[in-house]
Amino acid sequence: MHKHRVIFHPSGMRGRFVSQKTLLEVAKEMGVPLESVCGGEGWCGRCKLIIEKGMGNLTPLTDTEKKLLRDSELKSNYRLACCCKVKGDVAATVPEISKRSVQVVRKAVKEIPVQLKPAVRKYYLEMKKPSLDDTQGDLERLLQALEKQHNLRDLSVDYLILKELPDVLRKGEWKVTVSVWRTKEIIRVETGRKDVAYGLAVDVGTTTVAGYLMDLSTGEVLAVDSMMNPQVSYGEDVMSRISYIIANSDGLEKLNKKIIDGVNLILLNTARDAGIGLHEIQEVTLVGNTCMHHIFLKINPQYVGVSPFTSAVHHSVDVKARDLGLNMLGTGNVHLLPIEAGFVGADNVGVLLATEPWKWKKVGLIIDIGTNGELVLGNGERLFSCSCATGPALEGAHIKHGMRAAPGAIEKVEIDPSTLEVHYETIGGEDARGICGSGIIQTAAELFKAGVFLRSGAFNKELKAPRMRKGADGYEFLLVSKRETSVGVDITMTQKDIRAIQLAKSAMYAGAKVLMKRFGVEKIGRVILAGAFGTYIDKRAAMLIGLFPDCRLDRVVAVGNAAGDGARLVLLNEKKREEADEVAKQVHYIELSLDPFFEKEFVEAMYFPHMKDSFPHLNNVLKRVSPQ
Amino acid sequence: MHKHRVIFHPSGMRGRFVSQKTLLEVAKEMGVPLESVCGGEGWCGRCKLIIEKGMGNLTPLTDTEKKLLRDSELKSNYRLACCCKVKGDVAATVPEISKRSVQVVRKAVKEIPVQLKPAVRKYYLEMKKPSLDDTQGDLERLLQALEKQHNLRDLSVDYLILKELPDVLRKGEWKVTVSVWRTKEIIRVETGRKDVAYGLAVDVGTTTVAGYLMDLSTGEVLAVDSMMNPQVSYGEDVMSRISYIIANSDGLEKLNKKIIDGVNLILLNTARDAGIGLHEIQEVTLVGNTCMHHIFLKINPQYVGVSPFTSAVHHSVDVKARDLGLNMLGTGNVHLLPIEAGFVGADNVGVLLATEPWKWKKVGLIIDIGTNGELVLGNGERLFSCSCATGPALEGAHIKHGMRAAPGAIEKVEIDPSTLEVHYETIGGEDARGICGSGIIQTAAELFKAGVFLRSGAFNKELKAPRMRKGADGYEFLLVSKRETSVGVDITMTQKDIRAIQLAKSAMYAGAKVLMKRFGVEKIGRVILAGAFGTYIDKRAAMLIGLFPDCRLDRVVAVGNAAGDGARLVLLNEKKREEADEVAKQVHYIELSLDPFFEKEFVEAMYFPHMKDSFPHLNNVLKRVSPQ
Repeated sequence: MHKHRVIFHPSGMRGRFVSQKTLLEVAKEMGVPLESVCGGEGWCGRCKLIIEKGMGNLTPLTDTEKKLLRDSELKSNYRLACCCKVKGDVAATVPEISKRSVQVVRKAVKEIPVQLKPAVRKYYLEMKKPSLDDTQGDLERLLQALEKQHNLRDLSVDYLILKELPDVLRKGEWKVTVSVWRTKEIIRVETGRKDVAYGLAVDVGTTTVAGYLMDLSTGEVLAVDSMMNPQVSYGEDVMSRISYIIANSDGLEKLNKKIIDGVNLILLNTARDAGIGLHEIQEVTLVGNTCMHHIFLKINPQYVGVSPFTSAVHHSVDVKARDLGLNMLGTGNVHLLPIEAGFVGADNVGVLLATEPWKWKKVGLIIDIGTNGELVLGNGERLFSCSCATGPALEGAHIKHGMRAAPGAIEKVEIDPSTLEVHYETIGGEDARGICGSGIIQTAAELFKAGVFLRSGAFNKELKAPRMRKGADGYEFLLVSKRETSVGVDITMTQKDIRAIQLAKSAMYAGAKVLMKRFGVEKIGRVILAGAFGTYIDKRAAMLIGLFPDCRLDRVVAVGNAAGDGARLVLLNEKKREEADEVAKQVHYIELSLDPFFEKEFVEAMYFPHMKDSFPHLNNVLKRVSPQ
Repeated sequence: MHKHRVIFHPSGMRGRFVSQKTLLEVAKEMGVPLESVCGGEGWCGRCKLIIEKGMGNLTPLTDTEKKLLRDSELKSNYRLACCCKVKGDVAATVPEISKRSVQVVRKAVKEIPVQLKPAVRKYYLEMKKPSLDDTQGDLERLLQALEKQHNLRDLSVDYLILKELPDVLRKGEWKVTVSVWRTKEIIRVETGRKDVAYGLAVDVGTTTVAGYLMDLSTGEVLAVDSMMNPQVSYGEDVMSRISYIIANSDGLEKLNKKIIDGVNLILLNTARDAGIGLHEIQEVTLVGNTCMHHIFLKINPQYVGVSPFTSAVHHSVDVKARDLGLNMLGTGNVHLLPIEAGFVGADNVGVLLATEPWKWKKVGLIIDIGTNGELVLGNGERLFSCSCATGPALEGAHIKHGMRAAPGAIEKVEIDPSTLEVHYETIGGEDARGICGSGIIQTAAELFKAGVFLRSGAFNKELKAPRMRKGADGYEFLLVSKRETSVGVDITMTQKDIRAIQLAKSAMYAGAKVLMKRFGVEKIGRVILAGAFGTYIDKRAAMLIGLFPDCRLDRVVAVGNAAGDGARLVLLNEKKREEADEVAKQVHYIELSLDPFFEKEFVEAMYFPHMKDSFPHLNNVLKRVSPQ
């Protein structure tokens, strides 16, 4: 079959490909780092290329491209790599804006203090070899040695291990290391002495998936990997994915495969980074909201979305890796944390394990910021939880210049209220490419403080300033002029962006108010901000836009990915699993869609920071903001 | 691709086939009932065809054919279907001798009296559907109902069942039937009330595999199927199969696949005969000698064959059907009975369960006749066992005119000692085609009684009679002239046949003698003959050829396939499984190859009925036999 030459500038990477492959597929095969949020589904518009030669050797411009590319781009021979197929030789340039950059894990993941009691433990054994006087079976010999040398009784053995046992025992000359899961089942037998065991803690978020490869003998994090949840192309929030599953008979199959493939990639990447084999990973613990949990297990999630909002199972679940199709030790288990109720799932249980609100005296609020936001309010007496569809705005999606926390992402912003001069910092100090989560919240807060938009969220049309202008999406504020960026376009925050932020923050705020009403409390004693970018959030900015009700600022703490921390805790200490099952049962879940006050609270919270509530701890700031 | 026409007479079945297929493959695809014992490996010589047209359109005559076909057959255009590939149009006749006939299960399998306590039991449930006041998880709801309505606690659930649970519960409108395995694990949830559960008991013999499909709610046998063990083409006895595995890196893989495919075929055939779906079969129990057991589980059996003869496991084993690749309910289990020691495996445990020798006062002998013969001797005090490689002669293999118990098989024979006139009966009263197991033993006994061969096993050359003659394999005795057969050839018993019978029977006899010596007993109070054709054996004939030491004939009982009965017992009553594990531990295994007396006993037992031992209970017969 005839093959066509494809070359990518500026890297100069080149190869030969058969017809019918898209340029995105070609780039993936060659390892060209080309951005693609939607994975080639044709809705994100991020895989822009400039065709230098051979435009006629590509399939014609599609409607998707006409919609997602600007006129100026179309005129400059821009194409979306996922939309054009190769029919002949092509040369293309990857513009700066389309270069995929690795999401930055900006600090070493913090160690979590926990006693090491992993579910998988290794035991070294030396046995007498069989003789005519001692002809017991290989398994019986192994079990006897485990009992005598390590006081382990009544163990079962995974069939796949039994299968290999005679050869392994003899290869190891009757000296072997046995991996035992939960003091119950033999899941591995290795020749000789092998002390180290590995496990992966996974947080499957609606938008982001993160994995932490851990050394189970030291508790150390050996490698971290994260990615866009590959299900994103089937819907951005849980309800739209459930709709997809209801509408398509193979929907569950497809979405399940996406996340299994995704976790397999994380297994591969972290194992490679740590320099270990995939079969060395002996256990995976996993958190996720109820919808993510169900789809991961290939359980139909549709009944979670409709009254009375029942899930398939609440208790924690252990499933053999081979039954799920995960590329790790096939006899190893995947432990999914329990589910609370409705969409408040294993991820929130992880947050609770990491924050332990049952130890509090004063009533506190835990906000897990994500596409599906989850709130817990309470103390040692009672805990209430709820879930709110915040959407992915605070994670950078649906924001015109939103991006992941990667080099060049604007993470800190200050705007002078009198001059509207902008000071900003980017990750890595590189030329700006876009705005990441923490930058989005801070930009909104600074624009509000400076009076660029009003308490209603509408841009202040009275304000005449060079940075204020009308763009394609209505009013917008120029943050960074294209001369200073690496992507060659102005970085702005638009009226549409503010509306998206507004919807997200008011869902959170209204949820908190409903929980406070249920608990019967007027003030909260502390706020914990959790979520992937929680560590970098400016808490004053978050309160200023009204992400949560008034609280003493020194009592607002950002803890980072607490759901992921919970997954790591149960990976390192199996006792935490019982704690998790216990707490999951005790939290009182409030279904916001059934709450009589939620809608009113939601409308009031649309204002910045709120239509009615006072913020004594922000008085200094708010009194400078125009009162409209 | 060009296709060639192939037509088979006398049925007239025809079809078109591409080059390179053998006539045996073509016949299989078309469903032409052509005999093939070795499954196309080219050693049995049973798939003879007469080529009517197109001899030039077949690949040339092979060495195998030259060896296995007689000169007269070669002259008459006979070919072996497995040895010639189609290169053009061919017309062939299937001679009577090559027509495959279904093995006859001559009597309905006897019911075995046992209390019905199957491991898989079904429970019907009616649940309240979820409401906003009762939002527990689907699994929690199911478990609660099982506890309240059936007093079942602490059940686990197979992940594959959890996966389907939300849909099944709602489809069944919260009325379902739950299958629980061993009061431990939920392995199926069906909508509505479904009372019947099915299971298959399988006996994997070295040469023959038999399966019994049972209704677990009534204990009734619904269908029976049996076949040649498909591993036969890799070696006729356990040691030769082990040699194959040692010599070939993919040997275990291949042999395992053969038996898994074989059991899958039995599942398919019996399910079809009973009119049920494959997934309705919820459990399989399986017996087999240690080598068959290991290969079925894909465990390397090589260490069983060499000192100190250790097996991978002695205890009974339960494995999920899906881990083995069996086409039945994937969440169902396969239960393998425990192993005693050496090659005395789960099959012998099955025999013990069915015969219960631990209840005996007098010392008895149990003989399980098979390619790998197994003996147990003892009583309520002690039990000894051993294994002897008898070879497949008593099952009809390696006997010139040996065949399976199918219509036309000679099963009963009488020979007049003075005239040497032969009276015989065939299965179904059809024209004779060959001799089946029970017929072989009886023919040998009658020939011995008539003085056709001597105590040494050598044909009596002094005897001049029309039926005595010299054939291609030395002396032979004409049983049925070709005019009376349906296969057009004389049916004889040859000197070589007698030698094969002699080796088999002396291995058994010598084994029994070694066990008697160990127990310290001179006489046995009873003999139980077990084995697939055991029911039809003439016990006087068996003792006359010296298959076992002297015993009162009314104390010799033939019980049929007791190993298979044992598999059925544990299928119907789970308590029998503990009994099996217990007895397997208590039997004293004697390794004959290490016994100092075995060789001498073996040589002495080569005589008919024995070189030295007296047979008081056969005195009437033996005194008429010439004393040479």
